[in-house]
Amino acid sequence: MKTKQHIPRKNLITRSPYPGSKKIHIKGSMHGINVAMRAIDLSGKSYITYDTSGPYTHSEVDINIHQGLKKIREPWILTRNDVEQHQQTKQKPDCTPSHIVYRAKTGQKVTQMAYAKKGIITPEMEYVAIRENQQLREMKKIFADAVHKHPGQSFGIPMPEEEISPEFVRKEIAEGRAILPVNINHPEVEPMIIGSRFLVKINANIGNSISSSCIEEEVEKAVWACRWGADTIMDLSTGEYIQETREWILRNSPVPVGTVPIYQALEKVDGYAYELTWDLLKETIIEQAEQGVDYITIHAGLLKRHIPLTDGRLTGIVSRGGSILAKWCLMHQQENFIYDNFDELCHIVAQYDMGLSLGDGLRPGCLADANDKAQFAELETLGELTQKAWKQDVQVMIEGPGHVPLQLIKENVEKQQRNCFGAPFYTLGPITTDITPGYDHISSAIGAANIGWYGTSMLCYVTPKEHLGLPDKNDVKQGVIAYKLAAHVADLAKGHPAAQLRDNLMSKARFEFRWQDQFALSLDPDTAIEFHQAAKSKESSDSEHFCSMCGPKFCSMKATKEFRDQFQTKPEHH
Amino acid sequence: MKTKQHIPRKNLITRSPYPGSKKIHIKGSMHGINVAMRAIDLSGKSYITYDTSGPYTHSEVDINIHQGLKKIREPWILTRNDVEQHQQTKQKPDCTPSHIVYRAKTGQKVTQMAYAKKGIITPEMEYVAIRENQQLREMKKIFADAVHKHPGQSFGIPMPEEEISPEFVRKEIAEGRAILPVNINHPEVEPMIIGSRFLVKINANIGNSISSSCIEEEVEKAVWACRWGADTIMDLSTGEYIQETREWILRNSPVPVGTVPIYQALEKVDGYAYELTWDLLKETIIEQAEQGVDYITIHAGLLKRHIPLTDGRLTGIVSRGGSILAKWCLMHQQENFIYDNFDELCHIVAQYDMGLSLGDGLRPGCLADANDKAQFAELETLGELTQKAWKQDVQVMIEGPGHVPLQLIKENVEKQQRNCFGAPFYTLGPITTDITPGYDHISSAIGAANIGWYGTSMLCYVTPKEHLGLPDKNDVKQGVIAYKLAAHVADLAKGHPAAQLRDNLMSKARFEFRWQDQFALSLDPDTAIEFHQAAKSKESSDSEHFCSMCGPKFCSMKATKEFRDQFQTKPEHH
Repeated sequence: MKTKQHIPRKNLITRSPYPGSKKIHIKGSMHGINVAMRAIDLSGKSYITYDTSGPYTHSEVDINIHQGLKKIREPWILTRNDVEQHQQTKQKPDCTPSHIVYRAKTGQKVTQMAYAKKGIITPEMEYVAIRENQQLREMKKIFADAVHKHPGQSFGIPMPEEEISPEFVRKEIAEGRAILPVNINHPEVEPMIIGSRFLVKINANIGNSISSSCIEEEVEKAVWACRWGADTIMDLSTGEYIQETREWILRNSPVPVGTVPIYQALEKVDGYAYELTWDLLKETIIEQAEQGVDYITIHAGLLKRHIPLTDGRLTGIVSRGGSILAKWCLMHQQENFIYDNFDELCHIVAQYDMGLSLGDGLRPGCLADANDKAQFAELETLGELTQKAWKQDVQVMIEGPGHVPLQLIKENVEKQQRNCFGAPFYTLGPITTDITPGYDHISSAIGAANIGWYGTSMLCYVTPKEHLGLPDKNDVKQGVIAYKLAAHVADLAKGHPAAQLRDNLMSKARFEFRWQDQFALSLDPDTAIEFHQAAKSKESSDSEHFCSMCGPKFCSMKATKEFRDQFQTKPEHH
Repeated sequence: MKTKQHIPRKNLITRSPYPGSKKIHIKGSMHGINVAMRAIDLSGKSYITYDTSGPYTHSEVDINIHQGLKKIREPWILTRNDVEQHQQTKQKPDCTPSHIVYRAKTGQKVTQMAYAKKGIITPEMEYVAIRENQQLREMKKIFADAVHKHPGQSFGIPMPEEEISPEFVRKEIAEGRAILPVNINHPEVEPMIIGSRFLVKINANIGNSISSSCIEEEVEKAVWACRWGADTIMDLSTGEYIQETREWILRNSPVPVGTVPIYQALEKVDGYAYELTWDLLKETIIEQAEQGVDYITIHAGLLKRHIPLTDGRLTGIVSRGGSILAKWCLMHQQENFIYDNFDELCHIVAQYDMGLSLGDGLRPGCLADANDKAQFAELETLGELTQKAWKQDVQVMIEGPGHVPLQLIKENVEKQQRNCFGAPFYTLGPITTDITPGYDHISSAIGAANIGWYGTSMLCYVTPKEHLGLPDKNDVKQGVIAYKLAAHVADLAKGHPAAQLRDNLMSKARFEFRWQDQFALSLDPDTAIEFHQAAKSKESSDSEHFCSMCGPKFCSMKATKEFRDQFQTKPEHH
């Protein structure tokens, strides 16, 4: 692994605030924390909403990516007095921002699950409680005329009625139904939670393969993904500057960062799966834990006996990690070394509060292979591993497919929830048809909205380039928006208490022809403004009661307004 | 209404065949018909699939849009000996292609429903039976190694097991569960069917508003929409050259054309809803029937007493036709004149076999208004009208929303199927969140896939410009592709016998790194090729067993192939 003296150019990083919005901070009552949120200005009144963009959209904050973001969690971590400074195992890459490495003191448990089980509400837990909906009650008063709500339909998952309290957060973490991925070595992160009773989250994969990307671009890709709504990012780099790239991303990421350590381990043995060992992977995981990786994908559930179950498949094994481990098992004729060393793995990650994302190495790679014996056999093993991890207070989520036809999606969530005792489900898509290369973000947004509705907690995005090539910056945006959209559709359908108001405010703004408010409430104001400007005729102003779609004669909303005005006072006009 | 001497320039019309495909014709055994289909070449073997593009993708056919397409249905219509030539009521616009106007002979019933009830299988019925899946059995032999199938889940709608026969088609039409919209004055159309036991169809709206478009562009938009998969098009023009535009489109459209005649009627009274009369609308409908419009949207179910039910709504009435009629009812304090004259309307349209699409003038315009009293009250009236139409052998489908959160979609289909006695449902989207202007094709593709799965027969597309402006040519393509995708996802989920094979062939091509076959099987080969070319490194050739996404070291499919090869013969290698 080489390192390169790469100095990011500051002007590559997107820093503008969202149109019509400003960053605000809401103070917590328990820990004096300040929760960053976004206030959307609606003709003078503020609608406050979740904000994944970090300080990058806060115009008053000066960001120097050589120093990294402010370490907001550091005082919280040090106050707990259960960690100690530690010599970094692998030398920090040159030029990367300064970073003190912590590890749990011997005998201490430093995971959010450990605290939660002891009944402790951490600042992190209070942070996510506020983030999820604490302002809602007040906002409902302000926007009382837009409060309409349909009952949600949450399959076996009772949603909180009105408010998500810090105690509710603690309980969900203690019982393993939610994870709050925050490595003690990633103090820059703004805490967030992944669980079926919270807002559905989305992940964006970034990272270069071979040498098609450079480090500055990857940092900007992270910032860019967060701007459009990524709740976590996974750095899937497999190239030469893997460690350095990750360091830059971590020091500048306001959201949790996940990785797949086996990719880096494989780099260390020049791509020869046969040479992989537990010690090599362990060393890699420790390096990443010290850097601050918040969660790692581990393919510990793919067992040697599962491999023959894939024989009749149309597309075999399509998980990269899964195929590496299957190859290893077959070549050595031994059991998966991660499965065999899972307890030690848990012991290691618990010292950093690095979460485990139990990978589905046998996920289907096409609709024909969906929900087959191989996939479900591995899922059962993931359930066994979940309980092992929980015993050591390690936070766990379970990865899921992939490619699934619409009518088989629900079975995935039901089986996962049952086999894995309610642990959060984290799915890739799923794609619902195989014939849409170039449009797989749409084909999979359909699957994602449905699987989110059924109870999946986080959706890993798919970009338009899936199956064709690596995503560029625009693809990242297209993927993130499609998934933010799908997650929100799922939130609405489940009845998350904070989900409906924004839609109603948009609808009200639409009926009242408040175009600027419509743009500000859009998932992507830039595109809404651009499309509208292109269409708007020179004559009409923003406040006119019709738009370029139907013209003045055919505007139904204008007509409704007219006859409402006319017939409210004189119902017998003619 | 003025007409303009517009001569389309031929080079505006897209004529290239699909990459890797050619047009073939399958001969019917009953009527000697030739059914146009698309043969996709897969490394020497042909996969035959549905083709909406008409002769435009047939390189051997010379098309002169001044003459219009070949009138393939003319001999079928004349052979039935139940129509007579008729003087066109309104003079044909200058320069438009020649067109003989027919009408049923007095006392004759010329609708497909009338024939079906008498037990007659028309050439049109045989055509759609072949189109839907007649080649399937043979293809399954050829591609036996790609035949995997999951059971579909079709809610209360039993799907045919293996084959869609002409008799099956006849029965579905006779019982009103499907419509085959083919005006006797649109002999250029390639027959297609809309019903819950057939492939889910999609409609693309085209047409200019005010003067933002010109006629040639509208013809090309129609050809372009069909190329990407539109099964029908609706001409929603409201501008000055409305009659001329429609004439050009009809003479050159290989798919059924729908309209909303009240738009043209309103033009005739310069936009004053108050001036509308039944006679004016009737005259307009007859003009359009003579031109060959295959189905019309009629807002006959919006009754005066329904209007107050919209009072509490966030966005009132959002259907253009609905708001016009609501205004009329309130101004005149009279019942909807289309409702009052519905029997006469049926009598008129039956003479041309013009289908009725019963519009939902009170469809919700936002999630908050979904599934409300107003919407469902109108739906009940639509059921009443369905039975009136069937009594006169008029083919009917029912329009549906609009904006509906995911958890309320199913109720729409269930209520529609019950209230309207199984008549085909034709929905606009629905959009599943209100906050995605610029991305409403995605938000509504989610709703469309779900509502299609539950039993909707045709999905009206939504483009990225929805709520912002009028779609341009690229928006039309984006909307059509998103909806073709959604319709196919629904077909897969329901278990339409012809749905799964193409996906499996794609997956097999993927596993075998046959890139050209993957492109040819894609919904949009052009984009797949473009994205892949952009990503492909100079070194790798198309046949190499990895792609630019993961590179050679991390290709899971390559790894699977390797260990399958290695361990099939020597299972105890190490």
